[in-house]
Amino acid sequence: MSDSQTQIITASCPSRLGTVDVLTRFLYDNAYYITEIHSFDDTQSGRFFIRVAFRPNEAGEFDRQQFIDSFTPAADKFEMDWQLVAESYRPKVVIMVSKQDHCLNDLLYRWRIGSLAIDIKAIISNHPDCEGLAKWHNIPYYHFPITAETKPQQEAQVWNVVQEQDADLVVLARYMQVLSNDMCKKLSGKAINIHHSLLPGFKGARPYHQAYQKGIKLVGATAHYVSEDLDEGPIITQGVETVDHGYLPEDLAAKGRDIECLTLARAVQNHIENRIFLHGEKTVVFTK
Amino acid sequence: MSDSQTQIITASCPSRLGTVDVLTRFLYDNAYYITEIHSFDDTQSGRFFIRVAFRPNEAGEFDRQQFIDSFTPAADKFEMDWQLVAESYRPKVVIMVSKQDHCLNDLLYRWRIGSLAIDIKAIISNHPDCEGLAKWHNIPYYHFPITAETKPQQEAQVWNVVQEQDADLVVLARYMQVLSNDMCKKLSGKAINIHHSLLPGFKGARPYHQAYQKGIKLVGATAHYVSEDLDEGPIITQGVETVDHGYLPEDLAAKGRDIECLTLARAVQNHIENRIFLHGEKTVVFTK
Amino acid sequence: MSDSQTQIITASCPSRLGTVDVLTRFLYDNAYYITEIHSFDDTQSGRFFIRVAFRPNEAGEFDRQQFIDSFTPAADKFEMDWQLVAESYRPKVVIMVSKQDHCLNDLLYRWRIGSLAIDIKAIISNHPDCEGLAKWHNIPYYHFPITAETKPQQEAQVWNVVQEQDADLVVLARYMQVLSNDMCKKLSGKAINIHHSLLPGFKGARPYHQAYQKGIKLVGATAHYVSEDLDEGPIITQGVETVDHGYLPEDLAAKGRDIECLTLARAVQNHIENRIFLHGEKTVVFTK
Amino acid sequence: MSDSQTQIITASCPSRLGTVDVLTRFLYDNAYYITEIHSFDDTQSGRFFIRVAFRPNEAGEFDRQQFIDSFTPAADKFEMDWQLVAESYRPKVVIMVSKQDHCLNDLLYRWRIGSLAIDIKAIISNHPDCEGLAKWHNIPYYHFPITAETKPQQEAQVWNVVQEQDADLVVLARYMQVLSNDMCKKLSGKAINIHHSLLPGFKGARPYHQAYQKGIKLVGATAHYVSEDLDEGPIITQGVETVDHGYLPEDLAAKGRDIECLTLARAVQNHIENRIFLHGEKTVVFTK
Repeated sequence: MSDSQTQIITASCPSRLGTVDVLTRFLYDNAYYITEIHSFDDTQSGRFFIRVAFRPNEAGEFDRQQFIDSFTPAADKFEMDWQLVAESYRPKVVIMVSKQDHCLNDLLYRWRIGSLAIDIKAIISNHPDCEGLAKWHNIPYYHFPITAETKPQQEAQVWNVVQEQDADLVVLARYMQVLSNDMCKKLSGKAINIHHSLLPGFKGARPYHQAYQKGIKLVGATAHYVSEDLDEGPIITQGVETVDHGYLPEDLAAKGRDIECLTLARAVQNHIENRIFLHGEKTVVFTK
Repeated sequence: MSDSQTQIITASCPSRLGTVDVLTRFLYDNAYYITEIHSFDDTQSGRFFIRVAFRPNEAGEFDRQQFIDSFTPAADKFEMDWQLVAESYRPKVVIMVSKQDHCLNDLLYRWRIGSLAIDIKAIISNHPDCEGLAKWHNIPYYHFPITAETKPQQEAQVWNVVQEQDADLVVLARYMQVLSNDMCKKLSGKAINIHHSLLPGFKGARPYHQAYQKGIKLVGATAHYVSEDLDEGPIITQGVETVDHGYLPEDLAAKGRDIECLTLARAVQNHIENRIFLHGEKTVVFTK
Repeated sequence: MSDSQTQIITASCPSRLGTVDVLTRFLYDNAYYITEIHSFDDTQSGRFFIRVAFRPNEAGEFDRQQFIDSFTPAADKFEMDWQLVAESYRPKVVIMVSKQDHCLNDLLYRWRIGSLAIDIKAIISNHPDCEGLAKWHNIPYYHFPITAETKPQQEAQVWNVVQEQDADLVVLARYMQVLSNDMCKKLSGKAINIHHSLLPGFKGARPYHQAYQKGIKLVGATAHYVSEDLDEGPIITQGVETVDHGYLPEDLAAKGRDIECLTLARAVQNHIENRIFLHGEKTVVFTK
Repeated sequence: MSDSQTQIITASCPSRLGTVDVLTRFLYDNAYYITEIHSFDDTQSGRFFIRVAFRPNEAGEFDRQQFIDSFTPAADKFEMDWQLVAESYRPKVVIMVSKQDHCLNDLLYRWRIGSLAIDIKAIISNHPDCEGLAKWHNIPYYHFPITAETKPQQEAQVWNVVQEQDADLVVLARYMQVLSNDMCKKLSGKAINIHHSLLPGFKGARPYHQAYQKGIKLVGATAHYVSEDLDEGPIITQGVETVDHGYLPEDLAAKGRDIECLTLARAVQNHIENRIFLHGEKTVVFTK
């Protein structure tokens, strides 16, 4: 599906004349063929976002360093934040999980059949329960128990793995521990969490019980980036299904599992395809 | 579609042996044919809910009074709350609206083509804007302006119309005034409101602006019964659609209009088909 | 969630006075408490369908044989087709699969965490690919290769396993072989297939390529009972998602996998909860 | 919401190096600020599609003729099909309808509140039924009855109105007559039809009866461009809702009405925002 030479450039900068041209002219002048281009101009904040997929027009190896060296001066003039990633690059991912493994199982399946083009370097859990699943997939499993007292040490262990593996992305696949502010800061923008409610509706613990008490007729899930404000990080995508009076909290949770799996997978897919921009408290997502 | 003799009985009572039999035996012994029966047993509260559609098995007029007189003693033994309504009965409805008329227009259309089997007795507004639309449909329009000072008098005018028309149902079709506690109490259980957010997510004013600020990826609406606690009445049904970063508040509102129309119409349809039970802070809805 | 003594009775018969009473009176007279009752009267065909969940009102063991003996004469008078199943009964299931294992993986997961209350007795495939997955779940795996010549023998092998395991249900979880008429007949009403299109839109092979050629904007899947007419068996449930011009056949297939998993799982769940009635070329499904 | 000077350029051409640059360089060199850019490269057919929204960077009137004169030579080199439209341009629309007016009512409402930025020049019908609705909206109504014998003359009358009004778009809002091949050819690419089924599932007449017979669990609608092959024109968008065994053909039709309204309105909205490209038997749609 993807040409091995295709590159993705994503950039954002203040809105002003030439934000597209600076990029497209450079690509043309260097004989790159653009296969997809998508932009968004946020008139409220005066910021511009663009994602371009391109490849060398003629056969030949893409020279990443040369591209960076040549494009940097032009980008600097526009105060661009930009990233260049090969479409074929497989991000290095660490997954964190507690006991419930539906999202983990789902991500592993997509990875196993090649649908999710990532390298899962490690699975970290505060419980031993998912070790068998990890092992069957030949992925290292780190069991780091946690208590109120050992939290700083445990987070240090986690951070150690994340750094050793040079992880591009940490996926909190129903990791049921509240991260410290310090950890949130370290992971800011490179960690995706799945929250089992339609934020901002039901924050905090046991959202399915909250939802049951309220008699809601929809149940949902929210995938968002980890940020310092717990359960308030920039929303990436949300999923939802209808329910009725007959759904007990455990039924809501069962329906919720399906939504959580799909919503988290969609967020991860968009992230690894470099379709998401962090934009203050929000995101810009150029979905396929 | 509906046999003119078909009746709907809805009942709720404490859960105990015989709650179904007391009704089905009576219907059989009196030669009524059951066309639909649906029940729900709320194990958490120990309350039972049932809705039965039936008709005389032989040709002939249904004798409502006789039914009531005969069934009452049996129902009393089970402490039943129950209601009997002819399927062909057209509830008398008063619609309240402010300036935005999308829900009003939608309800009027469904009513005009016979899809919504109600009698719209009056449209009440605190603004004159919708009078032309009401007139074209030959429905009396009451313009009752409101200020902070005149609120009690205005609500008295509204209540007057509701009573004069012997309204079975009041539909708040984007009526943008906060009802007084007293008015809420009077309308409790017989008034449906459409709130332009996925409650309990965004209460209060300007939910689309709140949603925009939060960067949510879903926008929705909630139809609920009016109760004393504003924007907290029992939820009947909710609708939702996906949105993205490109939706400004006015775009969210545009998408919201479609959802509000469908959600409110669905709630009203279920209400007039006697498919909804109020159950404390929640509802039981036997959807078609 | 389910009381171990709860029973499910499902029945259908010609529509006539007393179809509900014959059952509810019997249940009451024998001191069974009804927890859920749902009926449908098909006015077009004059057939009545009912599903009742009940349990002994007092503590004590349910006597299945006694129930059957006592109720049979009453049911016979109404020419009832009826079945009685304990809610706690775990149906014995055989899953058939070819190479693609997304539906298999999904069903196994739901089974593993106890969400799908079945006993998976065997997995049968015409390929060896899924053996590892089966083994990890400790489920016997039968690899029965098939060619045009060996089809009758292979189907005999399959049928042998189905009979030996006394399977209540066979799930074709993307089994890509066309069953013979004879096999379809044997499995009629007890086998569920997932078809990767919105039947009747795209029958036959490679529906995602067909859909791509047509430029459709929705992609879906259909779970249906196996019947003699291939891809035309009674539909149980269908799922759908939006797509656009950017979806190549492989992208449609990727999106399709998610829909197929959810749709098949929903069909199996409804089947094992005895919520589905076969009704000629159609089904009646009392969804939760 | 839209800057009055914003222009939309849409273009398609064979895929080759420079297809983006030819446009973006021109825009920059002429001091146009790009607010949105979206492209699609169809690798299967080797054709490239792009839509760009832009405005003069400095205050001042946009000079359309000058733009066309200057850009044409560049576009020609790339064999571009291209169109330039002011975002503020209100397309001139003729709506055709028969007796059922739900889509008409819906379109008129969106137009009336300014949500659908079109000029409705005329409503044409083969029946007199919708005249009142048209009149209330102050839109000319043409009643052109039709019989098998008078079909050519009637279509000539229709075509006359379309031409007199210089209509940019004809919307078949449940116009229940089969257009002649000649008429289809004349309207090709500039007429949108709403078909009350999920094409290609249920072509031809009475799709809701077909769907009911098949026992489908989803009901939908398809908005497509008129082409010579009836009910086979390029699909623009499709809508869908779940249904069950309890839906009689009239219930399917009722649910269908809501879907048809939303689906047709979405198609028209995308068309007038110049988001749709005809691409052989398919469409490319850059949805908002």
